[in-house]
Amino acid sequence: MNKTQVKAATHTYPVSIGENLRHHTEDYLPKDYSSILIVTDASVSDYYLSDVMASLSNKNVFSHAIPSGEKAKNIDTFYEIQTKAIECGLDRQSLIIALGGGVVGDVTGFAAATYMRGIDFIQMPTTILAHDSSVGGKVAINHAHAKNMIGNFYAPAAVIYDVETLYTLNAKEVRSGYAELLKEALLADKDLYDALMKTDLTSLYSQKLINHLTKGIEIKAGIVEVDEHEAGLRKHLNLGHTLGHALESIFGYGSWTHGELVAIGLLFSLRVSEHAYSTNLPFEEVFTWLKNNDYPLQLPELDPETILSKMKSDKKTLNSKIQLVLLQAIGQPALMEISDEKLLKHIQDFQLEMKQRSEQGAEQYEK
Amino acid sequence: MNKTQVKAATHTYPVSIGENLRHHTEDYLPKDYSSILIVTDASVSDYYLSDVMASLSNKNVFSHAIPSGEKAKNIDTFYEIQTKAIECGLDRQSLIIALGGGVVGDVTGFAAATYMRGIDFIQMPTTILAHDSSVGGKVAINHAHAKNMIGNFYAPAAVIYDVETLYTLNAKEVRSGYAELLKEALLADKDLYDALMKTDLTSLYSQKLINHLTKGIEIKAGIVEVDEHEAGLRKHLNLGHTLGHALESIFGYGSWTHGELVAIGLLFSLRVSEHAYSTNLPFEEVFTWLKNNDYPLQLPELDPETILSKMKSDKKTLNSKIQLVLLQAIGQPALMEISDEKLLKHIQDFQLEMKQRSEQGAEQYEK
Repeated sequence: MNKTQVKAATHTYPVSIGENLRHHTEDYLPKDYSSILIVTDASVSDYYLSDVMASLSNKNVFSHAIPSGEKAKNIDTFYEIQTKAIECGLDRQSLIIALGGGVVGDVTGFAAATYMRGIDFIQMPTTILAHDSSVGGKVAINHAHAKNMIGNFYAPAAVIYDVETLYTLNAKEVRSGYAELLKEALLADKDLYDALMKTDLTSLYSQKLINHLTKGIEIKAGIVEVDEHEAGLRKHLNLGHTLGHALESIFGYGSWTHGELVAIGLLFSLRVSEHAYSTNLPFEEVFTWLKNNDYPLQLPELDPETILSKMKSDKKTLNSKIQLVLLQAIGQPALMEISDEKLLKHIQDFQLEMKQRSEQGAEQYEK
Repeated sequence: MNKTQVKAATHTYPVSIGENLRHHTEDYLPKDYSSILIVTDASVSDYYLSDVMASLSNKNVFSHAIPSGEKAKNIDTFYEIQTKAIECGLDRQSLIIALGGGVVGDVTGFAAATYMRGIDFIQMPTTILAHDSSVGGKVAINHAHAKNMIGNFYAPAAVIYDVETLYTLNAKEVRSGYAELLKEALLADKDLYDALMKTDLTSLYSQKLINHLTKGIEIKAGIVEVDEHEAGLRKHLNLGHTLGHALESIFGYGSWTHGELVAIGLLFSLRVSEHAYSTNLPFEEVFTWLKNNDYPLQLPELDPETILSKMKSDKKTLNSKIQLVLLQAIGQPALMEISDEKLLKHIQDFQLEMKQRSEQGAEQYEK
């Protein structure tokens, strides 16, 4: 098992990553609680809820399942968790555990952050993608008009990451999570990047997962410790996300996963970075790795103006100018303000390149 | 004009109290903002919104009116403010102003605390009662099952208190506000207490109001600066509120105001304190002052068990034992855990005494 610590403004919390942890949840609680509410979702519930319940000796343990999927990350789900917490008699010495992926973590964390103006909560991520959202203290729900619009910065009391819960993930979910790991590697760690480029996502094993997740979390923690409230450095974590989020909002959380669209966003960032800094970046290597690991890279035809306008409606937009996270080299991110005109040109070029590459791919396949 | 400073965990903010401030709002903003949304309620809007709008030179000033009254302090109002903020294009450099009483301040503050995970907000209280809620950073909405259940600790960027906006308050609202001032005086300031006992609420004037409000805010600030997140000392501010809130929840925010019920709660605290510490406290003087100032002191017949159970459902209850704030003397508050049995006896005695006093009052009147 690996253990790391994350420093938040209010407190430092432990992140434990290993096998079998869900059967020993109690050992990882930072203190005694008067009662515990486990929030999970319909799919995770079937697999792991009873394990976690059984691992807690507290007499007052309750559970609540929210619907699965991004669309559950809304104000109604949030309010239902509050109702459940009141009905179970949770007080200021109680704990809420978020057992699930990013959606469960985000909405549950926001409920805990606001229940009686904030009680302890613990993240128990059950997806690879959630390694990213489970540390750093960003909790939120979506507004009907915009993603993650309503939330808090609220650090968990602990993160308990049982990698065994990742074995039930399907290939799409594994890809989605590894795109964020790739992002972290590009931002800060050439060694992790090299390791990922050698990784076949269909043949992962426990210790490899533990090491990749630990590295990813350490990179993220290193950034959020310096800039918890996203005044500067933390913006680097948006590498690949400005385009990724725009595509997500166009496709409406449909057949593409978050990470799959971030992967495309990362390719875009690499290309724009090469132009901006007249430098060579491993676009080709990343493209090949994504392709070999079955990331969907063939975008449907989209109006570049629509993409641009979605990029601008992202909440990180300041005074309507887009700040893009770029790379001067692997491990050297930088922010660049970019005019609409230039950005539109980059989008068009990128769409064209991706289209040509996918046609070439098809041709090769036909040969 | 009086000016005082309040230290919060995240920053120190100025509180300005004086005449005519709403015509110079811009002078009291701590910095420039990309846009400003003023949230007010239907009744305040008619009186003061245009003054505040006119006093801001920022080109992007928007306004939003919520319904008046406690029942508007709910999740729907909260979400509507978020929607309005998005529609107006507010970003992380924007400001939300809460122009109104405690309800407007609480729900608007919570919206600001969570919009994009927190943007600046300024309190512009328009009631005497709101002097209390506008400092200290408690923001919240009510859950259908419990008051102030969903919220944050989130300090404002400034408090701008124009006492001219208090001249439109009716007698009930003046009484409501002065009950909280009386509470603060009892907790910490014998001089303010003596001054209040000489105050006729029907003949207030500007400088007197400014001085009372400044004193009250300084007392509150002194407490919340030591214990922003209510781990200990801040609980003293609940003096009179355990019974007050219980009565409020029984009457359902009807014809009694918050402060009127707190006034009854203060009398109860004084009586219980006399028993607990075998000491003399100025129950008689407070009772007479409340009576002379037309506070309604005649409670309807209520089952004491019902009152007790409502007291216990208050969210400050820890492990189901009631902690009551008592006074060893004026300026010397203390917390005491009290058994259900004893508390029930105190409630019954208090109900009986209040009933006898009101019958005596009626007899005197008949003579």
